[in-house]
Amino acid sequence: MNRGFASDNCSGALPEVLEAIRAAARGHHPSYGEDDYSRRLAEAFRQLLGPDIATFLVYNGTGANLLGISAVTRPHHAVICAETAHLHVDECGAVEKFTGCKVLTVPTFNGKLEPGFIRNHLRGFGDPHRVQPRVISISQASELGTVYTPDEIKDICDLAHDHGMLVHVDGARVANAAAHLGLPPAAFTRDAGVDILSFGGTKNGMIFGEAVVFFNPSLAREVEYTRKQMTQLHSKSRFIAAQFLALLEDDLWLRAAGHANDMARLLAREAMQVPGVTITQEVQANEVFAIIPREIIEPLRRDCFFHVWDEDAGEVRWVCSFDTTEEDIFDFTALLRSLAG
Amino acid sequence: MNRGFASDNCSGALPEVLEAIRAAARGHHPSYGEDDYSRRLAEAFRQLLGPDIATFLVYNGTGANLLGISAVTRPHHAVICAETAHLHVDECGAVEKFTGCKVLTVPTFNGKLEPGFIRNHLRGFGDPHRVQPRVISISQASELGTVYTPDEIKDICDLAHDHGMLVHVDGARVANAAAHLGLPPAAFTRDAGVDILSFGGTKNGMIFGEAVVFFNPSLAREVEYTRKQMTQLHSKSRFIAAQFLALLEDDLWLRAAGHANDMARLLAREAMQVPGVTITQEVQANEVFAIIPREIIEPLRRDCFFHVWDEDAGEVRWVCSFDTTEEDIFDFTALLRSLAG
Amino acid sequence: MNRGFASDNCSGALPEVLEAIRAAARGHHPSYGEDDYSRRLAEAFRQLLGPDIATFLVYNGTGANLLGISAVTRPHHAVICAETAHLHVDECGAVEKFTGCKVLTVPTFNGKLEPGFIRNHLRGFGDPHRVQPRVISISQASELGTVYTPDEIKDICDLAHDHGMLVHVDGARVANAAAHLGLPPAAFTRDAGVDILSFGGTKNGMIFGEAVVFFNPSLAREVEYTRKQMTQLHSKSRFIAAQFLALLEDDLWLRAAGHANDMARLLAREAMQVPGVTITQEVQANEVFAIIPREIIEPLRRDCFFHVWDEDAGEVRWVCSFDTTEEDIFDFTALLRSLAG
Amino acid sequence: MNRGFASDNCSGALPEVLEAIRAAARGHHPSYGEDDYSRRLAEAFRQLLGPDIATFLVYNGTGANLLGISAVTRPHHAVICAETAHLHVDECGAVEKFTGCKVLTVPTFNGKLEPGFIRNHLRGFGDPHRVQPRVISISQASELGTVYTPDEIKDICDLAHDHGMLVHVDGARVANAAAHLGLPPAAFTRDAGVDILSFGGTKNGMIFGEAVVFFNPSLAREVEYTRKQMTQLHSKSRFIAAQFLALLEDDLWLRAAGHANDMARLLAREAMQVPGVTITQEVQANEVFAIIPREIIEPLRRDCFFHVWDEDAGEVRWVCSFDTTEEDIFDFTALLRSLAG
Repeated sequence: MNRGFASDNCSGALPEVLEAIRAAARGHHPSYGEDDYSRRLAEAFRQLLGPDIATFLVYNGTGANLLGISAVTRPHHAVICAETAHLHVDECGAVEKFTGCKVLTVPTFNGKLEPGFIRNHLRGFGDPHRVQPRVISISQASELGTVYTPDEIKDICDLAHDHGMLVHVDGARVANAAAHLGLPPAAFTRDAGVDILSFGGTKNGMIFGEAVVFFNPSLAREVEYTRKQMTQLHSKSRFIAAQFLALLEDDLWLRAAGHANDMARLLAREAMQVPGVTITQEVQANEVFAIIPREIIEPLRRDCFFHVWDEDAGEVRWVCSFDTTEEDIFDFTALLRSLAG
Repeated sequence: MNRGFASDNCSGALPEVLEAIRAAARGHHPSYGEDDYSRRLAEAFRQLLGPDIATFLVYNGTGANLLGISAVTRPHHAVICAETAHLHVDECGAVEKFTGCKVLTVPTFNGKLEPGFIRNHLRGFGDPHRVQPRVISISQASELGTVYTPDEIKDICDLAHDHGMLVHVDGARVANAAAHLGLPPAAFTRDAGVDILSFGGTKNGMIFGEAVVFFNPSLAREVEYTRKQMTQLHSKSRFIAAQFLALLEDDLWLRAAGHANDMARLLAREAMQVPGVTITQEVQANEVFAIIPREIIEPLRRDCFFHVWDEDAGEVRWVCSFDTTEEDIFDFTALLRSLAG
Repeated sequence: MNRGFASDNCSGALPEVLEAIRAAARGHHPSYGEDDYSRRLAEAFRQLLGPDIATFLVYNGTGANLLGISAVTRPHHAVICAETAHLHVDECGAVEKFTGCKVLTVPTFNGKLEPGFIRNHLRGFGDPHRVQPRVISISQASELGTVYTPDEIKDICDLAHDHGMLVHVDGARVANAAAHLGLPPAAFTRDAGVDILSFGGTKNGMIFGEAVVFFNPSLAREVEYTRKQMTQLHSKSRFIAAQFLALLEDDLWLRAAGHANDMARLLAREAMQVPGVTITQEVQANEVFAIIPREIIEPLRRDCFFHVWDEDAGEVRWVCSFDTTEEDIFDFTALLRSLAG
Repeated sequence: MNRGFASDNCSGALPEVLEAIRAAARGHHPSYGEDDYSRRLAEAFRQLLGPDIATFLVYNGTGANLLGISAVTRPHHAVICAETAHLHVDECGAVEKFTGCKVLTVPTFNGKLEPGFIRNHLRGFGDPHRVQPRVISISQASELGTVYTPDEIKDICDLAHDHGMLVHVDGARVANAAAHLGLPPAAFTRDAGVDILSFGGTKNGMIFGEAVVFFNPSLAREVEYTRKQMTQLHSKSRFIAAQFLALLEDDLWLRAAGHANDMARLLAREAMQVPGVTITQEVQANEVFAIIPREIIEPLRRDCFFHVWDEDAGEVRWVCSFDTTEEDIFDFTALLRSLAG
């Protein structure tokens, strides 16, 4: 199939990842995380994110978010997130089902939570009739392709910690955020006060696999059990670890995500020159949001599928991937231009 | 690492599976099961198991069992299984946690449920104080390496259906069972009355991936939601589908499992000639259970890791895989002989 | 303790209810709903609400709401309710914990849901990534002391049914609503299309006990099990049934609630004449919401406790009960006047 | 209805309890446990069971068991109890549903757990594939009418604590146990090492209400939230507290239960003289288990209902209550004799 802009999870896999799988397939290895690949990866994550972390590999992003949040919640807690958060909108209520917690949502302008809006939910502490706010979950990069600065994250972490709460980062696109900021990931996670990070692999060139990082390992004391019970423990664990090792080696993860970001910026720059096209969010990661003439949405999608984000507004979403090429962009924007013309 | 006998999930991947992954990594494809690989696989499963089935791909065996059982249960139901069932012993209580159901266990001699013992739990129907028996779950092949005949399964299905219940088969090793019986898998599932089948891939040469088959698709009406909510929906679904397509092509799945079974029989035959070694279960699939002299367990494990099954009895478990070689067997039994000598 | 305006659940019990308990305490009776009182009550509810209903007795309002909603939901469903709904704000997340469902909230002006706002949540049907809207839950009377007209309820029911959804009514104060409307309760429940009703007893002069009414008994097929599992089945069931029988006899329930409504109107009329006091919601049931001078809130509460509804706005809530007297009102408003003077 | 032997929850209420309800019905009182009755009761329980306890009132026995167990478990834990335990057999799977825990059962001869049998389940600690044993739950008196000695309980507590586990006592009939032992309840709970106690009220002459006692209040830090979320927090809390106060005053609870025990012993003594009748369990509390001629079970039940305990064995259960009279016994055994004659 042609490369399109529907989602970064429509992309394939990085050659280095494929080679890592091939190499790991030889011989027998202990299962369930006792293998050498998993051990080496734990060390690689410590190099990247800090010496005192606990890392757990899982299958997918929903599993990663759920594992991180379930580790620090009891059923009478609440999780606060953006109205647009993947865990609220796109995970079929997994948080409520598995943790029993209530999800409280906050409106945003650009996918990024602001302390002022969060505060509306910081009430009822100590009242047994009310759910107790326990976790603030943010997405970095956000679902609208924007990226929090370290200071913005620090403000949210300070607010959370002042209320005895914790901060979880859904980092399905953490690589895109890191590439955009040009900062080591610890700068906007550990150093900003983040407690738990879902570190994405699938959208960035892996076949499957995500990691959950606890910056305070004491929070993760029971996570091994929960991961198993939650169906997120892979038996042939080396195959997730080996892919991640390939991704982290020589900053491949940053180069792959940086390329996707570059392509998104190019796409936005080209598209915004087309009459009737308005880019609606700052393009910081690998996603472009645009309002385009309603009548060309379907013809354009027929050739190259993508998602309509807001039916009412005529807003669409285009996502670039590690394997998007400049040619893909120019072909697509040429079609866009000709349909809009 | 050397090939050993710890578990079939310590093995690597079949070359055909690796090639399928490589091929599927090219280009973009729709995610979440909308891809062509998934469509072709659905057809392949229909060819194998019957025209009226609904198949769902998941990550792992715990997820497969849980998805199948959750589809047909409400929290006041009970699931009946063998004392040794993987879902009871090895899944950290996933069934109770996710479905809310009680798990009622039945003792067995050889890992296979018998109607007489099941009947002890078939009571309390209609009494709101009692959980309502709803599913009988059996493992084919069983956790003790034994294989149900079609008639044995039919008897259990008849018993279940007579009580308004359903039968689930944990087929993590269904390939080993099929290879042993020399029968098409429909013969001991659909035709015997089975309602839901977990069809294993991971233990039989895949990197990850299992399938859940509903022989009556009306039972599966809400399974798409549950799979997502349960964290078992893979975004890059083509990578599970492509592996399974490779496995099903030209009966590779049967050949791979048949080889593992052959190796297990060879291992048993060689081991039973060693003084002090007793084979404790009939070797029908790819597992060998043996009582060996207590003092050689640790030295033997040091060289070639395997699991002690029953500490008290000195019983060990040896598992063969698609990639086990005759040389592996002879090396191992030579060591066994020399230690026991 | 003096009678105050904190809540109708601070009131005691109707004399008829006490007498009914005393009478029912004699002799032995079958437990768990098999007693004659329960049978007679089921008939009394059928007289009141229609011949084809199924009624279940429970302990309290949270249990009643939960039993009704759990009967018709699966964990991937969503419940839509007002931002102010008791089940969202005051039940410590019981719906999420027990049903696994997501609760989606709708802002309201006066505690009453409007179809236009509900529609924002009626999306994603058929998309396995999204929770599936299944129940609209309204409170009659609402948490702000307002009462839906039968037509308003019918509009919501029509909207729900058009989308394959159901309507649940939290009727902890259904008696106050019925008394206000001067209509038989069937007129604004069954006849308006309501599917499930929590019928309150505790706030209206009972010691404990609520009822859950299913207007379509086929929805309630498994409710007996769920009630037991949810811890809401009382063994000495006759004691709930006997209280309700006393309440329903000769319309005692309507007279008791009507009196509370009258007292609330009197309280509002008197209070609104005090300088600096603004009544903020129409007084239709037994609750008065008012903004009063901030500095008198604490002195007033010291003498006669009540709840501050909105800290920021200086809004308070006063609730009248079946046993509130005119003297209580005049004493309280005299104090209010003197403090505000 | 005539007094029979079906269950102690078929009995009515003690006069003192009725009077306490009547008195508490006057005036307004804070709800949700903030009332004076609740405060006085907390003190009364401290007098009875020790100064460092935390007590929570709930509606019923299933709620009491669940609240106690949920306070100290996470979903990957297991609860160990007798095969006959009420929480395993008669609560419709509430433990599994609400806590997510697995329930592991132990066979018993007389309803009382023995350390030797418990040990079979004390394995898999630290293995993330296995549920982690966390609570041993015993019933005092047991479901078979037998009573643990303080030493027997101490042995179980020691075993539990040696494994980092806790002990819960289902004391729906704790009064009958205390009356039998002639010991203060602290002697066989707190002093024996028990961590959590369900203290029954309903079966012993209350209309509704049970208490959950934590001997280490630090275990109960989040119980207020859980009680609310579990639907077990009563708004008009004074009505539970007032009943318990009446029960505890002047040892009424012990006298009521002691009478029931006496009646059970009398019933057993009379019944065992009837040809064909065998008493099958030692009569220590208020229950009698007997094998009686199969053909007289139905005629006898027609006159005076009771439960068949074991259909296959022809074993029946007769339960005495605080209000059982000697005349009830003699009438019943006369009928038994005449039918058996």
